[in-house]
Amino acid sequence: MSSATLEPRRWVAAFLGAASLTALAPARRDPLPSWNEGPAKKAIIEFVKATTDKTSPQFVPVPERIATFDQDGTLWVSHPMYTQVMFILERVPALVKAKPELAKVAPYSTVLEVLKGDRAAVAQLTEKDLLELLAATSTGMSVETFQAEVKKWIAEAKDPRWKRPYTELTYQPMQEVMKYFRDNGYKTYIVTGGGQDFVRVYSEQTYGIPPEQVVGSAGGTSYGYDNNGKPYLTKDPKLLLNDNNAGKPEGIHLMIGRRPYAAFGNSGGDRQMLEYTRAGSGARLAMLVLHDDANREYAYGPAQGLPDTKVGTFPQSLYDEATKDGWIVISMKKDWKRIFSFDK
Amino acid sequence: MSSATLEPRRWVAAFLGAASLTALAPARRDPLPSWNEGPAKKAIIEFVKATTDKTSPQFVPVPERIATFDQDGTLWVSHPMYTQVMFILERVPALVKAKPELAKVAPYSTVLEVLKGDRAAVAQLTEKDLLELLAATSTGMSVETFQAEVKKWIAEAKDPRWKRPYTELTYQPMQEVMKYFRDNGYKTYIVTGGGQDFVRVYSEQTYGIPPEQVVGSAGGTSYGYDNNGKPYLTKDPKLLLNDNNAGKPEGIHLMIGRRPYAAFGNSGGDRQMLEYTRAGSGARLAMLVLHDDANREYAYGPAQGLPDTKVGTFPQSLYDEATKDGWIVISMKKDWKRIFSFDK
Repeated sequence: MSSATLEPRRWVAAFLGAASLTALAPARRDPLPSWNEGPAKKAIIEFVKATTDKTSPQFVPVPERIATFDQDGTLWVSHPMYTQVMFILERVPALVKAKPELAKVAPYSTVLEVLKGDRAAVAQLTEKDLLELLAATSTGMSVETFQAEVKKWIAEAKDPRWKRPYTELTYQPMQEVMKYFRDNGYKTYIVTGGGQDFVRVYSEQTYGIPPEQVVGSAGGTSYGYDNNGKPYLTKDPKLLLNDNNAGKPEGIHLMIGRRPYAAFGNSGGDRQMLEYTRAGSGARLAMLVLHDDANREYAYGPAQGLPDTKVGTFPQSLYDEATKDGWIVISMKKDWKRIFSFDK
Repeated sequence: MSSATLEPRRWVAAFLGAASLTALAPARRDPLPSWNEGPAKKAIIEFVKATTDKTSPQFVPVPERIATFDQDGTLWVSHPMYTQVMFILERVPALVKAKPELAKVAPYSTVLEVLKGDRAAVAQLTEKDLLELLAATSTGMSVETFQAEVKKWIAEAKDPRWKRPYTELTYQPMQEVMKYFRDNGYKTYIVTGGGQDFVRVYSEQTYGIPPEQVVGSAGGTSYGYDNNGKPYLTKDPKLLLNDNNAGKPEGIHLMIGRRPYAAFGNSGGDRQMLEYTRAGSGARLAMLVLHDDANREYAYGPAQGLPDTKVGTFPQSLYDEATKDGWIVISMKKDWKRIFSFDK
């Protein structure tokens, strides 16, 4: 076969090499293969096209392309307990070993019961208890020590249901959304109620999001010197930013300084971030993941009659606000072809 | 002339077009044309080469390439008064117009005297006065209102000596350093004692640094709704981060979460940022601009016998620490061929 019999595109591809064939036909590949066709997938693709096509009235210049993603329940599994809460609980035995008198004092005694297998005892832990445990296990040490401990724990710890590292329990459809946004010039940020220092340890490897693009609840640090005069930062128990609810737009302003064009969440704690995003001019995308798939993951609301929960609550009022204000609710059951990268 | 008589490189360039000629010979261009040859220029170029050459033992992967720059006195003129202090003082008349009773109350009365021409009266303003004026002029309004006021002021205000907008009084040699770093895969950040919300308004246009890469002193904001239910953020008088001295490494950890490989400053307020930078492993560059050029800009220290100052003080102890610990002091007089882009 002579080159004259080839179509022009194929001829160019043959001349330049196989890589160029892909470059010439990027539109053919589905950017969201783990999504079923439907209103959610359609909304994402239409939003990206509208904001990146130079001829579109809703075009957004590259530097302004910011998309924010809640983490727990939006990017990875957060039931039956937040991963960071597991980290905190599992650090208690070492704490008790160093200070044996804590073994008989609540909330430490309660945590020891939970870790022995009495899962129901976790319900006894109040928010105040969790804050005390957070301060006891995650402050008063250098930033490097904390990072090393998180790194070690996250590499070894496993989710009890899937028997896999927590970092494998990210939602494949959301990984595709983040990559699709980045491939189209968006900077993707995590905006999480979880600890900023905690999430930053694994965000780059797990989500392709560098530490400087992780906004989370953050405590202060104190600069000081060790005995050799080498400076280091100590983690303080003082909370600077509670990155939940109104704290999310406040944290976005503090850490990014621009209003997002797209925001993704899954619970009442994301309400204000989505409102703030939608309040901007032009095309603004607000999406909420609804956990309505008890078989493949979990089902909880209490929106739409789903079981109630204390972890990542999606109240009916949030569902109603979404419907009224043009936000898109993602049904895990209907919209996601697969949940995890290891699903068939 | 036939193509056979051209050298191969020129032949390729002629074939591919002029743009490729530049691409083939980037090393020929001096990246720092406003710098005189000397130890400072040499240190910058050697650092960038050592950290970006893949065969170098000091190679730094692209995502970790972070360089931080103080603003006042490092990137632009800060004498006789910080630009943001001028902004604050010049907003007082509008404040007094709205509340006439303030005209006879210090520190407002003092500011009115200063603005009438009694420049010496500015010395009466204490740090507490300045914080009161900052709160009175820069909080209690929406983020958007503040941004619009800064944008308007910075476009109109002029420095009394050069009769030019403050944003033209950036140091051309430092603009070249920032561009050189960015061209070599570094993310450049401003880390300033100035207000984060203030600097972010003009940072992209003035320095090529986007708002999310400006770390500065920051107050809290409060999320709320207007009468139409539209959400907005109000600037609060509560200080979250005092980004000076120890606050600089603390702010870097909060906002970036990585230790810089290079840091530039000019005063005692930058000491801890430079210490923190140098405390990392591998090649770490710490540089200080010394204002020793009374003719072309200003001369102040009191390091090295230069006149003392309250604005951007460079104490002898900082000079000694720099010498002892391998930081590089940039002599404005000797190292900079020109100061401003408008210099001949």
